[in-house]
Amino acid sequence: MHALPQPFPLDDSTWPPPFLLYLGNAPDDLAAKTARGLVQFRPEWCLGQFRGPDCRTSVHVPDMGFAQARAAGANTLIVGVANAGGRLGPESVADIVAALDAGLNVASGLHERLNLQPEIVEAARRNGRHLFDARNPPPTPVGNGLKRAGRRLLTVGTDCSTGKMYTTLSLEKEMRARGLAADFRATGQTGIFVAGRGIPIDAVVADFISGGIEWLSPDRHDGGWDLIEGQGSLFHPSFAGVSTGLLHGAQPDALVLCHEPGRAHMRGLKHYPVPDLRTTLEANLVTARLTNPDVVAVGVALNTVRLSAEEAERTCRAAEDLLGLPAQDPVRDGTARIVDRLLEAFPC
Amino acid sequence: MHALPQPFPLDDSTWPPPFLLYLGNAPDDLAAKTARGLVQFRPEWCLGQFRGPDCRTSVHVPDMGFAQARAAGANTLIVGVANAGGRLGPESVADIVAALDAGLNVASGLHERLNLQPEIVEAARRNGRHLFDARNPPPTPVGNGLKRAGRRLLTVGTDCSTGKMYTTLSLEKEMRARGLAADFRATGQTGIFVAGRGIPIDAVVADFISGGIEWLSPDRHDGGWDLIEGQGSLFHPSFAGVSTGLLHGAQPDALVLCHEPGRAHMRGLKHYPVPDLRTTLEANLVTARLTNPDVVAVGVALNTVRLSAEEAERTCRAAEDLLGLPAQDPVRDGTARIVDRLLEAFPC
Repeated sequence: MHALPQPFPLDDSTWPPPFLLYLGNAPDDLAAKTARGLVQFRPEWCLGQFRGPDCRTSVHVPDMGFAQARAAGANTLIVGVANAGGRLGPESVADIVAALDAGLNVASGLHERLNLQPEIVEAARRNGRHLFDARNPPPTPVGNGLKRAGRRLLTVGTDCSTGKMYTTLSLEKEMRARGLAADFRATGQTGIFVAGRGIPIDAVVADFISGGIEWLSPDRHDGGWDLIEGQGSLFHPSFAGVSTGLLHGAQPDALVLCHEPGRAHMRGLKHYPVPDLRTTLEANLVTARLTNPDVVAVGVALNTVRLSAEEAERTCRAAEDLLGLPAQDPVRDGTARIVDRLLEAFPC
Repeated sequence: MHALPQPFPLDDSTWPPPFLLYLGNAPDDLAAKTARGLVQFRPEWCLGQFRGPDCRTSVHVPDMGFAQARAAGANTLIVGVANAGGRLGPESVADIVAALDAGLNVASGLHERLNLQPEIVEAARRNGRHLFDARNPPPTPVGNGLKRAGRRLLTVGTDCSTGKMYTTLSLEKEMRARGLAADFRATGQTGIFVAGRGIPIDAVVADFISGGIEWLSPDRHDGGWDLIEGQGSLFHPSFAGVSTGLLHGAQPDALVLCHEPGRAHMRGLKHYPVPDLRTTLEANLVTARLTNPDVVAVGVALNTVRLSAEEAERTCRAAEDLLGLPAQDPVRDGTARIVDRLLEAFPC
């Protein structure tokens, strides 16, 4: 039996929970994806939400102002609103300055950096508060492809936004519930906020993609698993380079394939169809074998949110028959059967 | 018949030729790769070289000091020395300041930016000279995978440093000699100096690899070819993400496969063997088909510098028999037979 690692490096964090979640004037639900992920996976850290006058969404925690949140014990404002281009508008800058003046630290997952905004930097200094840019990757070496100790599972997908983060976190929960050592390794902004650490792999310099993942998931000697959050898809013409480097850096022992049945086309690209499950899995196995010839697939995670319970059940069974792997919707069913298969393939 | 485009945007360049090539204290021939490429492909631009007291290489142009080079007509110092980590040491900084004080502009291909060194920026301002960081990519959109007008050829390789830039430039030369419109599109620092423009694709943020190549090679309506310089290899565990995004962004109609026969292992990675020609070509065709289902291979470029003339001849014939494609060493033989095959496959 292994001691369970802490999910969050609370001792030395510069952006400690509890959090006030900044929604600003988010125009729709998708724009609040990061805040929603935190409410879902770390509800105990989410004290409230701050919404502007034109905000069109909610993550269903109490509305609060900055001073009110600070008085209630909030330590950090989380800016996770995904607007076009990942930019900080003048309204957001003014809000962030006000939050710092109210005594909150501020953490952001936007491409545009807090630490490059003079007004924000000055307000942080004035108030002795910390700024954290989750999208600012740490410097890492170039990948070397050397075999590392320990076991790794990677989630891969037919497309972007098919549920890779959710699936990976669900696997962590299931494995920990069985007393196994298993740690979610975050590669995107929402995952980094949930895990308290990680690398924003889409923001590293192109030569360092696989090296960034080698850094994220180093040698592991406790017999446990690193569960690495995948990104994009080998079949997405915009982002397949990231997915390729991620696969090579992860050296996965096991893959879980994530898919949303019924999606009409690749995300953002109407002229590209979604590849089928078998083609996607085979391409991922072939690519992964470069750095780990023994990689195997252990399951399929289907996002069936738009299907009825019956349709979902039928779709999962069809995927099982097609690939000979357990297929589950992590939201409806959890991931117990996928973990069963993982443990069959890799006995402790 | 097409008008041949200018190889260099001389009118608005901030780093105009002629050049003084900075070798500094380069420890070996490889460190002077960029300077050597310029001497080879743009000898008319290379007035001289500047070597420090511990320099262990030469690119065989006259040795000159900064003032001497300026008096002889040099306009720009090219800093292309590839030292560990792409860093500017204090000696190099002092030399660059001296070059600016002598009236030269300075262009660098190092990861460490001229424009982030206060002493260098101040010296440029003081002397009214320009600084150009070739490794600082322009902001580009995310790739969209939309079909673009015009034809594109991409060089791909079994490994890094197999002759992709040389081959691409050799194809440009051969096609232009036949009166065809054909333009080398640079993706690495040496290529950018040779072409006078380009994008350092290994230095863009990971999400923008394919988008960077779409920017580099936009719609083309003159019936001519963009000849895109490849980078890395789908089989290099450190850099395959770059190669994948490059393939998708290039949407190549034609591939030329570059290889150095007899190489013992992947560059820098003793534990990774070099893949065989057939496996490499097939993987590149499969990956390229995502954005251009009609892609075909038109030739093999072999770097036979370490072989005798007889061995080189035999190796080329073996590759031809294996793949059914013309195989040539661009240095020994040029690329005429590869261009013949290209024109057979794509009649004007």
